[in-house]
Amino acid sequence: MLLGDLVDTNTAWLSARLAALGVGIYRHTTVGDNRERIADVLREAASRSDLVVTTGGLGPTSDDLTNECLAAVTGRRMIEYPEARAHVDEMFKKFGREPTPNNYKQALFPEGTELIPNPLGTAMGALLEADGTTFVTLPGVPPEMKRMFEDTLEPLIRARSEGSIISKTLWFAGIGESALAEKVQDFLDATDPTVAPLAGQGKVRLRITTRAATQEEAEERIAPVESEILSRLGDYYFGEDEETLESVLGHLLKENGATLALAESCTGGLLAKRLTDVAGSSAYFKEGLVTYSDESKERLLGVPHEMLLEHGAVSEPVAREMAEGVREVAGTDYGLSVTGVAGPDGGTKEKPVGLVFVGISDTEETLAERLDLTAWARSREAIRERSANRAFDLLRLRLEERNYS
Amino acid sequence: MLLGDLVDTNTAWLSARLAALGVGIYRHTTVGDNRERIADVLREAASRSDLVVTTGGLGPTSDDLTNECLAAVTGRRMIEYPEARAHVDEMFKKFGREPTPNNYKQALFPEGTELIPNPLGTAMGALLEADGTTFVTLPGVPPEMKRMFEDTLEPLIRARSEGSIISKTLWFAGIGESALAEKVQDFLDATDPTVAPLAGQGKVRLRITTRAATQEEAEERIAPVESEILSRLGDYYFGEDEETLESVLGHLLKENGATLALAESCTGGLLAKRLTDVAGSSAYFKEGLVTYSDESKERLLGVPHEMLLEHGAVSEPVAREMAEGVREVAGTDYGLSVTGVAGPDGGTKEKPVGLVFVGISDTEETLAERLDLTAWARSREAIRERSANRAFDLLRLRLEERNYS
Repeated sequence: MLLGDLVDTNTAWLSARLAALGVGIYRHTTVGDNRERIADVLREAASRSDLVVTTGGLGPTSDDLTNECLAAVTGRRMIEYPEARAHVDEMFKKFGREPTPNNYKQALFPEGTELIPNPLGTAMGALLEADGTTFVTLPGVPPEMKRMFEDTLEPLIRARSEGSIISKTLWFAGIGESALAEKVQDFLDATDPTVAPLAGQGKVRLRITTRAATQEEAEERIAPVESEILSRLGDYYFGEDEETLESVLGHLLKENGATLALAESCTGGLLAKRLTDVAGSSAYFKEGLVTYSDESKERLLGVPHEMLLEHGAVSEPVAREMAEGVREVAGTDYGLSVTGVAGPDGGTKEKPVGLVFVGISDTEETLAERLDLTAWARSREAIRERSANRAFDLLRLRLEERNYS
Repeated sequence: MLLGDLVDTNTAWLSARLAALGVGIYRHTTVGDNRERIADVLREAASRSDLVVTTGGLGPTSDDLTNECLAAVTGRRMIEYPEARAHVDEMFKKFGREPTPNNYKQALFPEGTELIPNPLGTAMGALLEADGTTFVTLPGVPPEMKRMFEDTLEPLIRARSEGSIISKTLWFAGIGESALAEKVQDFLDATDPTVAPLAGQGKVRLRITTRAATQEEAEERIAPVESEILSRLGDYYFGEDEETLESVLGHLLKENGATLALAESCTGGLLAKRLTDVAGSSAYFKEGLVTYSDESKERLLGVPHEMLLEHGAVSEPVAREMAEGVREVAGTDYGLSVTGVAGPDGGTKEKPVGLVFVGISDTEETLAERLDLTAWARSREAIRERSANRAFDLLRLRLEERNYS
């Protein structure tokens, strides 16, 4: 990790879960497989904290040093725990393999350790109280670490802890971060609940956070803030917490018993990929045509040859024809299309990199919208993601409108 | 970041770049927007290191504290740099907006700072030498941070540094991590160069690393290891360093003047999306049909209705028909197809979640391969990514074979 080979996702996951339990987190530290440096980090963390959680370094090889360093820092001996030795044997039996002597290194822990069961792997964790600090060692393999946190550590912290930090995330599209911030500046300046914005690729989220003795109390404090924010920004709001534009679209299409087809050019399958990331999407998503050539647009979508010659593939009339064409050939209720210049090459003065048209069609009307994404001309990914987000959001607005009409 | 809202990707990126320059990295520390805690971290890092690099906390708001804390730790006054003030004005002009007084906070730096230009944003960085430690502050916005690192910091470190760590990554597909490791165990056990495996979603990479006085010397040490590894694993090797299956496919298709069309069911556009992540892919990728319903498979690809009734959409004959069908309708040289059960629902005893067929067709023959991905039945994403990787790898092998024949 210190060489940048791996992005550390464990720390973010653990932090979110610990924060939700009301644990205030002051530092993350990453250190290499070095005896002195690990011991230094443990000592320093203990001097600042009631709880020190480590991940990694519990394996059977010589560079797995966490428990050994914990023993050194707390002045305990390393001793073998028969329960942990039996666990190693049991896991190897389950995998149909024979343990080698060094595997039993995973049965050694500092004296006084309470073992943390690991139903998914050989490495049990340690929970050790020393000089007013609780040390917890967990393995680095994410599924094992998460399972052990949830099974053992979470209940333990919950039992000891006095309050909860509760957060709620609200998602918005079709508005920039600064325009959104302006409308809710009073909440952004407030300290309880705190409201923090975060923007990315055409979406903005607001995270409302408060700390309270009970979950109910926290929710009561969040509710009025949420409802005031929604009353100011309701048109742009599309979902909460884990919801995405594509999952929200899925719900709306299902609710309406409606079906969808896609015609993509510059996004090259990104919309189809994202829609089908959602399990169960076959209920409403029927087909996606990635028409990457003019010839495909003519043959599959019925875009007239003359229109392509006159206006070019990246144009409003072609976006409209694509959306209407795919809706008709697929026999769906809605058709959605994207055509544009994603770059980095292929831009001209009239059709620069970042010029994109999104088309939307249902039985009542077919429209296209011009997107100016030239500010992101240096990122093919940004242009494609922003185009997909706008296309999905246009369909969301159309579906919500049809819902109410 | 301490709340787990964001996964920190800057640190891994910076670490990889610093390691490549021969900088030994001992610690990563993450700390909140708190004056004393930031100062503590800077002080501690300085006591251990020649170079301390920070990201984030350079914005105009009151919780952006990095440069202020740096001034406190090094005993310097904060003073306004006219050059930085002019930069703020210039960037605002470029964005067509007016700076507010607090924006000029970004012109304040510790006395004695050398400014680091930021061509992408208002926040310039600081480079400050104090008591034998070089402090560098960079903004947290990844594109700004990366650009400033490459433009200013990298040349500076290169000029000062005595050696280089050089790495080369080799990519393999079609072989599992443990089978691959067995074939090169002697290299995995060696200490110079080191060779480390990392596996993910049907691909395995080996990273060969060495440290030497000059880049040439490092490359000379890596070359024989690389060539021996390739002689043992050549069939599975598909590319090096930043290459991906889709970029390698792009090169091979271009070299052969060949074109490709896709027919996807369970991958839902993922193959098309990945192919078109590569700039310039329109030269060889003509169209992708995401046939998510049986009806689409019949109408667009000519899969016989009886075949779907008899074998089901997830079957070897259907995979073949899809690959051949899309190649014929699109008029391309190659056709590639995927049909399977991605889950989490929709599996049966005969067609469990994780059963996937990949079809490949050219003018000489059409084949299909059965993939058993039931071990990943709990991850829709894993099944889809692994299916895409296997489909791309089959086409790569076919193209390489055709190349030599």
